[in-house]
Amino acid sequence: MPSLDGLLDAHQKIMRHTRARHLLDDDQQRRRPFGFTLDDTLHVDFSKHPINDETIELLSQLCQHAGLESKRDAMVAGAAINTAEQRPALHMALRSGPGQRSYSADGEPVSAEVHRVLDQISDFCDSLQSGARRGATGQAFTHVVNIGIGGSDLGPRMVCQALRPYADTGLEVRFVSNVDPSDLENCLADMDPARTLFVVASKTFTTQETLTNAKAARRWLNAGLGLASDDVAQSGAHFVAVTAAPQRAEDFGIQASAIFPFWDWVGGRYSLWSAIGLPIALAIGPKRFVELLSGAHAMDEHFIAAPLDQNIPALMGALSYYYRNYWDAASHAVLPYDQNLEALPAYLQQLEMESNGKSITTAAEPVKAKTAPVIWGAAGTNAQHSFFQCLHQGTDTVTMDMLAAAKSPTQDQEQHQILLANFLAQGRAFLEGQDQALAKTRFLAKGMNDEQAELAAINSQIVGNRHITMMIYPELTPWVLGALIALYEHRVFVQAVLCDINPFDQWGVELGKVLAKEILPALNEDKLVEVDPSTQALMARLKAWQA
Amino acid sequence: MPSLDGLLDAHQKIMRHTRARHLLDDDQQRRRPFGFTLDDTLHVDFSKHPINDETIELLSQLCQHAGLESKRDAMVAGAAINTAEQRPALHMALRSGPGQRSYSADGEPVSAEVHRVLDQISDFCDSLQSGARRGATGQAFTHVVNIGIGGSDLGPRMVCQALRPYADTGLEVRFVSNVDPSDLENCLADMDPARTLFVVASKTFTTQETLTNAKAARRWLNAGLGLASDDVAQSGAHFVAVTAAPQRAEDFGIQASAIFPFWDWVGGRYSLWSAIGLPIALAIGPKRFVELLSGAHAMDEHFIAAPLDQNIPALMGALSYYYRNYWDAASHAVLPYDQNLEALPAYLQQLEMESNGKSITTAAEPVKAKTAPVIWGAAGTNAQHSFFQCLHQGTDTVTMDMLAAAKSPTQDQEQHQILLANFLAQGRAFLEGQDQALAKTRFLAKGMNDEQAELAAINSQIVGNRHITMMIYPELTPWVLGALIALYEHRVFVQAVLCDINPFDQWGVELGKVLAKEILPALNEDKLVEVDPSTQALMARLKAWQA
Repeated sequence: MPSLDGLLDAHQKIMRHTRARHLLDDDQQRRRPFGFTLDDTLHVDFSKHPINDETIELLSQLCQHAGLESKRDAMVAGAAINTAEQRPALHMALRSGPGQRSYSADGEPVSAEVHRVLDQISDFCDSLQSGARRGATGQAFTHVVNIGIGGSDLGPRMVCQALRPYADTGLEVRFVSNVDPSDLENCLADMDPARTLFVVASKTFTTQETLTNAKAARRWLNAGLGLASDDVAQSGAHFVAVTAAPQRAEDFGIQASAIFPFWDWVGGRYSLWSAIGLPIALAIGPKRFVELLSGAHAMDEHFIAAPLDQNIPALMGALSYYYRNYWDAASHAVLPYDQNLEALPAYLQQLEMESNGKSITTAAEPVKAKTAPVIWGAAGTNAQHSFFQCLHQGTDTVTMDMLAAAKSPTQDQEQHQILLANFLAQGRAFLEGQDQALAKTRFLAKGMNDEQAELAAINSQIVGNRHITMMIYPELTPWVLGALIALYEHRVFVQAVLCDINPFDQWGVELGKVLAKEILPALNEDKLVEVDPSTQALMARLKAWQA
Repeated sequence: MPSLDGLLDAHQKIMRHTRARHLLDDDQQRRRPFGFTLDDTLHVDFSKHPINDETIELLSQLCQHAGLESKRDAMVAGAAINTAEQRPALHMALRSGPGQRSYSADGEPVSAEVHRVLDQISDFCDSLQSGARRGATGQAFTHVVNIGIGGSDLGPRMVCQALRPYADTGLEVRFVSNVDPSDLENCLADMDPARTLFVVASKTFTTQETLTNAKAARRWLNAGLGLASDDVAQSGAHFVAVTAAPQRAEDFGIQASAIFPFWDWVGGRYSLWSAIGLPIALAIGPKRFVELLSGAHAMDEHFIAAPLDQNIPALMGALSYYYRNYWDAASHAVLPYDQNLEALPAYLQQLEMESNGKSITTAAEPVKAKTAPVIWGAAGTNAQHSFFQCLHQGTDTVTMDMLAAAKSPTQDQEQHQILLANFLAQGRAFLEGQDQALAKTRFLAKGMNDEQAELAAINSQIVGNRHITMMIYPELTPWVLGALIALYEHRVFVQAVLCDINPFDQWGVELGKVLAKEILPALNEDKLVEVDPSTQALMARLKAWQA
């Protein structure tokens, strides 16, 4: 009997000569559904892919064979599935409300503590709203700056932008992440220290960028409020911390009552559901933050319960693995036709590439599969006027997700229809393409002569048969966004299981941190550091320009 | 004699087993320079690549063989090198000042007209500064909104953000591009119609997104100023146009004196140097806009004059082609360690992928080479906490550009040194990697037991020997930015010549536009449109949700 790998390989060789457009009319090859809807609110459509019943069958077998169900169940059960760090990965526990599924970490129940912190977040939001909590000069807060990086930045940043139409608390939330001092300076340029609250978010509370920016923020605050430059006590009213290392936050000078905890079993890039989501709650209110959690919980329950061949994250993850390893797809484009989701590609870049950009299996062997693709993208229709040329006529296989809402959050539904027309039209173009003969007809109809039309037609051929998943939803509510993010989280988990890698560690980022600490003194104090000749020469030139 | 293709293939087979770290110490393999500096202001360092003298030799031959010099000279001479559209590509003419190189398009001199429009831009900026030009209610303008998309948006947007420290004109410039009505609504939410000027930028003045947003902007303006909803005359004071189709702008209701022309021979994605750069001039003043042009001109002259083996754009372009076609590099990451250059990757996405995302040669044959890679990236150090895991330990070849300034535009040079330490450290990590033994030593020193340290070390291995070009400059001035952008433009041209494709057309984006116009009536009026079953089903669901 041929191996599953052999079967998939043989299947690809047939499917690469099969047009999805024809499959859409072929009831024999497509007896299954190729679109799935969660709670009539998030519809995921795979029908434009060049896939048939057999593809779904093979992908389901692939998931079974890799033990997806038992690994998923181990994650739900709170086992230490983050093997190299011996920790559970329990982001699902963060969005399971009272009366819903109970979670435990290594046998210890966690749900009560999760709900307690949610109450703490809610109380804190209320205290800002009511004016019970104010700045050092007695003024109410109007602005919040989240200082964090990576998982302590990208999630809340993306969600706050996406849910901007729900931001009615009167608090404007901004984000600073980069250690480049321009980031903080640009952010603070037009702000009033007396009315600004800083949220310092770092799981370890040792992150170099975040601590550096937090100190700079305190200097700015103290200077602006006329406090002593080393003041901690009075400016303390302007700082809260979100961290799994509360003692370090206290050492930094943040009041114990202003520290929001989270836990070892929450990975940074899976943490927006925890107190790392505080800026979200501050922007849209704690009730809507809970709606976001509910949407994610609904997707969790779907992932836990649905059979593999109807399981949306399982199918998305397996499809991605299949394209990566059998179609040589090196990158995946995320294309929200939704301006407020502009930051989604950057968020998913971290989620997927930091989770699955690995080369070592869970058994500490070199991995055989290709792991994470490059994740990239931009909002439509902007992207149509940028890189779509390459998606339509380039030489590589790029897989794509396209997303759109039926209804606009603005009053201008009429203009929104133009957005939707483009969304649907691009889906059609990616599916059908345009052959030379059809193109020539169009150019002749435009009045070109035969020679011109022929040349234009050759240049206008579009192969089509691209690889797009189209996702639609009635409108971008907190619930829908929660479900969507959870979908991607589980998709990443599925890919990891199929590659047999651990998506919850990130050993590869440590080396750079170590080396940066070695180099800093050499830059600042002319100390000799042993580095390679290339780095040495660059450093010398930078210092000469600084002198 | 083996072909150049065979030689490059054989060379790659040797070099892929060669460590760049060793080459740095090998005077025999590296007798040439591997770094080049333009005017002691922009230094481009190739020394961390696994390349030697022979690589440079072969790449130079590749350029020669493809006729790069004669094609470059044809571009400079204003020949119709955009063959399929029978037009010159003369963006270099836009930045050649009085007394510098003269350019002609198809034999017609263009430089005088270019300088005339620059004067028009300068006069216009002055008229806003002096208050000679005011809004309909007599108030001075404080805000400018550029409405454009693709090439009429990404360039000026990126430059305005990059040169933010020079924005001292008192005019705040914003950008709206997406047809999604959220984009304009988000932009206008806190703005005062009486003080807002709109720049409507579209080469053809038919771009659906831009015209739709411009009409919505006029409605907002008329409502805000209490004018008749169809007023054009009074609100006209708030509109200027930048276009190669001035008659259409007049038909839209923009005063002839407020129309800034540009020309057929300026491609959209090469147009920020033309009147499309008006928002840049408004933000930083016309003098600094001219400095931007000067930097680009200096790079042009280098590209025109430098021998191929010392020609920075030629080497960058050829290296990119080599990695793409002989190392299977499917994507290229742009990593500015410069927060103000955050939008550079998005800008370069269009520049490169729309130029070179093609499959047809200049002779209208299927192309043999792999053409544009996917261009993506983000600002460092943010990216270190996002996708760097995948760059260090992922399974694919990704080429990279890293950029940094010696000096911060802020006063906080001390914090800037941390940014630079990370920049240099990551370069070192990409070069050297970390072997298992070294990693284990580090973990043992941290107090792990042998078994733990062994496991952690296996997971911490980093191959290194990645493919990075490091670019540094004293500070991000308009001049440096101009030179940098021109460098990338020419790099794209070199790649196109090596692939034998035309980088100046974009036939692949037309189909989607045609199909969107077909679908819109079906969305709005229940008209029947013949589309594939997948599109039909999605449309039905969207309409049901809208009902």
